[in-house]
Amino acid sequence: MDVCEYSEIESEPKTSRQLRLQPRLIVNTGDGKGKSTAAFGVGLRGWSQGWSVGVFQFIKTSTWPTGERLAFQTLNGVHQRTGQGGSVEWMNFGEGRTATRAGAKANQRELAEKGWGIVRERLESQTHDLIILDEFCHVLAKGWLDTDEVVRILKNRPGHQHVVITGRNAPAGLIDAADLVTEMRKIKHPFDKGEKGQAGIEW
Amino acid sequence: MDVCEYSEIESEPKTSRQLRLQPRLIVNTGDGKGKSTAAFGVGLRGWSQGWSVGVFQFIKTSTWPTGERLAFQTLNGVHQRTGQGGSVEWMNFGEGRTATRAGAKANQRELAEKGWGIVRERLESQTHDLIILDEFCHVLAKGWLDTDEVVRILKNRPGHQHVVITGRNAPAGLIDAADLVTEMRKIKHPFDKGEKGQAGIEW
Repeated sequence: MDVCEYSEIESEPKTSRQLRLQPRLIVNTGDGKGKSTAAFGVGLRGWSQGWSVGVFQFIKTSTWPTGERLAFQTLNGVHQRTGQGGSVEWMNFGEGRTATRAGAKANQRELAEKGWGIVRERLESQTHDLIILDEFCHVLAKGWLDTDEVVRILKNRPGHQHVVITGRNAPAGLIDAADLVTEMRKIKHPFDKGEKGQAGIEW
Repeated sequence: MDVCEYSEIESEPKTSRQLRLQPRLIVNTGDGKGKSTAAFGVGLRGWSQGWSVGVFQFIKTSTWPTGERLAFQTLNGVHQRTGQGGSVEWMNFGEGRTATRAGAKANQRELAEKGWGIVRERLESQTHDLIILDEFCHVLAKGWLDTDEVVRILKNRPGHQHVVITGRNAPAGLIDAADLVTEMRKIKHPFDKGEKGQAGIEW
């Protein structure tokens, strides 16, 4: 059955407010820049709504100090101190700086399984209003988790939880299940000319 | 001549540090979601580097309270209070909530010209390390500003200023001049099913 639970319980036409409160499953995929940064931009919007935001970063290690993590930790600190905005939980389940570099590491699968176990708990307990699963497509494409099982859990998540998933090579089953899918397509990138990533732009 | 000034003045091979400090002209275009949010995600990275960040939002009105503006104003407040991160200047030059809705407004051209005048001043005085020109492609595509003139000024900007430009229908001259171009391509979007934008997701 392809109708989500939220729709099933509605028998009357939706009110304007209800139409503005649909839980979304969003996928940012493709070979271009902007998949993760667009997810973080949505994270800013969620934070400003006062939402609890959870960022679960696969593949990428927590030992690499990224600007996105520092900024969200800062926004979480503002929330803790003043009550403004929402709270932010940030966890990393990876060993690499980038998806490409991490490929050779041995225990990526174990880290991915551990991370998904925690994400499942968060979904079941409805801890967050917005969950970002960064580089998670990569985990599915590698076969480290079973896509059918993951999609089933995502589609049946209770309540009103937005989920944004990023990474190259989103599997077809995930794209089918998603409400909103964008392909970030590379038109040109300095890496193709052998240039290096830039502080403040790539991390 | 297609080589940027920064390269022309280099005669020795670049050091690793120099290779990490190339001023980028980045364009996010296409009909999909994520053009502006990806720019804001880069803005987070810039903020964490301690950069001065300038966000100049065309088309969109400042009277519509977006989550991205509130979050960046908060981060600017943290910087003013504690010195952490960078400063953020945010200005709006538009009358609409979205690029589409603003089309009917009469004085968009005048607002665009005014905004570009201010951006030119910022570029000349090297006020910011990172400048985001949100929905600016739209301004160029509408012909409200002369693309050749804009591209000339962008390519000849002094010093080390990253510029990120977003919006549908990026003109060819801008794409040619850019270092990094991504097309956000819509695979599927709930708007196509007549659904409405979601607080925290679309603004």
